[in-house]
Amino acid sequence: MTKKIVIIGSGNVATHLSIALFKEKYEIVQVFSRTLKSAKILAEQVNANYTNLSENLFLHADLYIIAVSDNSISEIVNFEALKNKFLVHTAGSVSIDIFENKISNYGVFYPLQTFSKNISVNFSEVPICIEASALPYQKYLEKIAHNLGCKTYLINSLERTKLHLAAVFVNNFTNYLYSTAYNILEKDNLPFEILHSLIKQTSEKAINNNPNKVQTGPAVRGDETTIKKHLKMLDSEVLYKEIYTVISKQLDIGG
Amino acid sequence: MTKKIVIIGSGNVATHLSIALFKEKYEIVQVFSRTLKSAKILAEQVNANYTNLSENLFLHADLYIIAVSDNSISEIVNFEALKNKFLVHTAGSVSIDIFENKISNYGVFYPLQTFSKNISVNFSEVPICIEASALPYQKYLEKIAHNLGCKTYLINSLERTKLHLAAVFVNNFTNYLYSTAYNILEKDNLPFEILHSLIKQTSEKAINNNPNKVQTGPAVRGDETTIKKHLKMLDSEVLYKEIYTVISKQLDIGG
Repeated sequence: MTKKIVIIGSGNVATHLSIALFKEKYEIVQVFSRTLKSAKILAEQVNANYTNLSENLFLHADLYIIAVSDNSISEIVNFEALKNKFLVHTAGSVSIDIFENKISNYGVFYPLQTFSKNISVNFSEVPICIEASALPYQKYLEKIAHNLGCKTYLINSLERTKLHLAAVFVNNFTNYLYSTAYNILEKDNLPFEILHSLIKQTSEKAINNNPNKVQTGPAVRGDETTIKKHLKMLDSEVLYKEIYTVISKQLDIGG
Repeated sequence: MTKKIVIIGSGNVATHLSIALFKEKYEIVQVFSRTLKSAKILAEQVNANYTNLSENLFLHADLYIIAVSDNSISEIVNFEALKNKFLVHTAGSVSIDIFENKISNYGVFYPLQTFSKNISVNFSEVPICIEASALPYQKYLEKIAHNLGCKTYLINSLERTKLHLAAVFVNNFTNYLYSTAYNILEKDNLPFEILHSLIKQTSEKAINNNPNKVQTGPAVRGDETTIKKHLKMLDSEVLYKEIYTVISKQLDIGG
């Protein structure tokens, strides 16, 4: 089994994935990025060369992993030098069809996780959604994921967009609710820390149960007194009041 | 220090708190509940008597803990037999003033956590918000909380309602988002399990950071293409589409 990999991109996904691969003895031969400075920063961490010029792309790698913003993927796919290579992208909402008629062998290697600079991720806990143009390539990607200690899921492009949508709810939107709570408390100099245990327990409960079955709170139990109190407290916070109203109404309809 | 406690209520808070106290060698002398059957179930777990009649209330306890629904607290406070006792309630959104002119010594012992039947809680991780009518009673409640291994916070009634409001965001509303994601995936037979790692990481990130600083996603980065795709997928789900729109708009305004 060959192991030379070129990483295209130098953002959060590129960085966390490269480092995980490097730790598992994959040879990252090159980091390609439009931003030479960040290509260099990543390359140095994984003992790789780096470039920002497509004509300098290393041409003898076994796998080219595209980890750039969704809108930039099509540009990479059009690189003449890559048309006979094995390319994968790592995006949730971009169909595998983006490679069609342009690249011979291709796939998707989508790590369903949130990656931030300077926040470490235990990569073995990241589920990898895999799709490929042909079975040997699927097997190849599954093997890499398993070497990283990851669980894999065979997910087609339509399913992957559904997963990405669901991920927006449990990650982006959930974090927005955390921020709302943080800001409500900060206004009265109350420490957000008091909520840490509740945040932890809430997420654990959803992991160990169907979240539909463990819903609690004033809205589902029809506690109008508390809801009215809360809305009154939010009088000066138009946006938070809107969120409160919309979710409470939906919980009430659902309940 | 005396240790005889009467628990008034037999729901989730009453149950989890009683069991935690019992484990720390507090003597639960009696469980009082309108529902005799659930009083019995709890009483048997903590080696206590039980009753559903106010005239049978044990009158020589050092502390009476009210853990009933918000609307039922005032009824307990009016029990003639309790007027010279030390009473606390455990509610987030009920002011300490509910005891005023009715009970001589009183306080609030609010465990800021979500409690569900059959889901165990590590009580030592539960923060306790304390308020009392006089300093010795405050110290007494702090001591109990510390014996349970809990962190304590001195929180007045107005602050406590703010905390309860914030808790609704990080617990009830967050769980609603989890449910939404669950239902989106279920419709396509995709396992919710794929999101477990993301849910865990998202909550850990909010615990280790100011959540305002780690917000990611299509809305904050102004990724209209993805947002449009997502909204189209939600065409048949009016409620989810409304939530998606409201939060995305607010993230965009905030960002």
